[in-house]
Amino acid sequence: MCELLAMSANVPTDIVFSFTGLVERGGVTGPHKDGWGITFYEGMGNRTFRDCKPSCQSQVASLIKEYPIKSQAVISHIRQANRGRVSLENTHPFCRELWGRYWTFAHNGQLSGYTDKLKPQRFQPVGNTDSELAFCYLMDKLAERFPEKPKEMRQAFRFMAQEAAKLRELGVFNMLLTDGRYLLALCSNNLCWITRRAPFGEARLIDTDMVIDFKKETTEKDIVTVIATRPLTHNEQWHTMEGGEWQLFKDGLPVASGRS
Amino acid sequence: MCELLAMSANVPTDIVFSFTGLVERGGVTGPHKDGWGITFYEGMGNRTFRDCKPSCQSQVASLIKEYPIKSQAVISHIRQANRGRVSLENTHPFCRELWGRYWTFAHNGQLSGYTDKLKPQRFQPVGNTDSELAFCYLMDKLAERFPEKPKEMRQAFRFMAQEAAKLRELGVFNMLLTDGRYLLALCSNNLCWITRRAPFGEARLIDTDMVIDFKKETTEKDIVTVIATRPLTHNEQWHTMEGGEWQLFKDGLPVASGRS
Repeated sequence: MCELLAMSANVPTDIVFSFTGLVERGGVTGPHKDGWGITFYEGMGNRTFRDCKPSCQSQVASLIKEYPIKSQAVISHIRQANRGRVSLENTHPFCRELWGRYWTFAHNGQLSGYTDKLKPQRFQPVGNTDSELAFCYLMDKLAERFPEKPKEMRQAFRFMAQEAAKLRELGVFNMLLTDGRYLLALCSNNLCWITRRAPFGEARLIDTDMVIDFKKETTEKDIVTVIATRPLTHNEQWHTMEGGEWQLFKDGLPVASGRS
Repeated sequence: MCELLAMSANVPTDIVFSFTGLVERGGVTGPHKDGWGITFYEGMGNRTFRDCKPSCQSQVASLIKEYPIKSQAVISHIRQANRGRVSLENTHPFCRELWGRYWTFAHNGQLSGYTDKLKPQRFQPVGNTDSELAFCYLMDKLAERFPEKPKEMRQAFRFMAQEAAKLRELGVFNMLLTDGRYLLALCSNNLCWITRRAPFGEARLIDTDMVIDFKKETTEKDIVTVIATRPLTHNEQWHTMEGGEWQLFKDGLPVASGRS
């Protein structure tokens, strides 16, 4: 399997603390040695850093830990390969453009018997993971349902939550999807989240010896949600999502949810 | 304007030497302070590093100079903004997927009177540069002309060279385009290239005090072409391209060319 991490915030915020915990799972406290990636949105643009090396040994991951990039929407993934060999084209997150927006996706889980069922046309996978195929399939459905950008972007995310939930019939499908403003988390069996806001306190990472005092890093107005496959800190209360549950976040807050 | 850099090679090769010369033009020997980007293909996958900061001050650019990523196809760009503000979404190279391949594009020049003429549908720009709009327009044309991947990929690049040449009617359009295997260079007024192969010699950068002995870095079989808006070394003979000329490269060698 893999590990997922995402962030939604109301002000550009760095994810160094959470990312530091995550990368330990890429070869130190976890077995996810088959590459990693992280996408930061800055305005409408985004940038993805990725590597096939284990995140705990990657020079690119070291840069991310030392160089705080401030973003309102981030998706990250560390990989333990099942479908698709270890290679850059099989390394999440995946990105496609639709309606002049970049859509970014990462997946935890494994699908089976999907070859005949997922046959995207307009968006096609470059690598050979079940994850990228599922993403292209979902993007195809979205473009078919909304040939033009819907007035209210929540409609698009609600639609994607419903379509993605159907993929749970093919296996385990924990998923993160963002257009840089909204962030959708769909839980199959393995996602949790936490919203941090004033009054901020201290947090301690589970995977490595690191403590942060968010009071020193934030202003009173900051609202930041972090989503992960497993809690990253052990002195805070994370919301554990249930199978079939989805949550939509914007500007650090949950704005819609549902269950399939 | 901007500066362009590209590489095509028959074996995975690092571009640290040429990139080191290029980034000097991003604030030291040149005025191109408005961001920079570089895309490396590794297999079918690619990764783009980009930053809105001047390349000479960018921590991400320092990583690229210190961390040799080996690739057979690279496109890089440093920006001096004319159309579109300084932002990540306006930072080249731009990337889109078609037929399960990633297409990467960078542009030097400036177009005028294009708003009514370039109205892409399927591929839409995220930022507001003339460059990304022209790229989306060309990708639209390509997808329209070849709804499925042509058997011979050279057909696609010949078509793109012809379509891109028409954009020269709207202004200056020096362009680089790759799918990770083929690399197309179209010259409006400002492109040159050099192919290095055995017997390799020494090269000296123009923009900073750096000398490389390619004999020590290569094998006898290596063939590497570097393309740039202006020569990067002063002791080698670069081919200066003419207005309207295009060259297609694969595995480090020129494989087709033409003139509009």
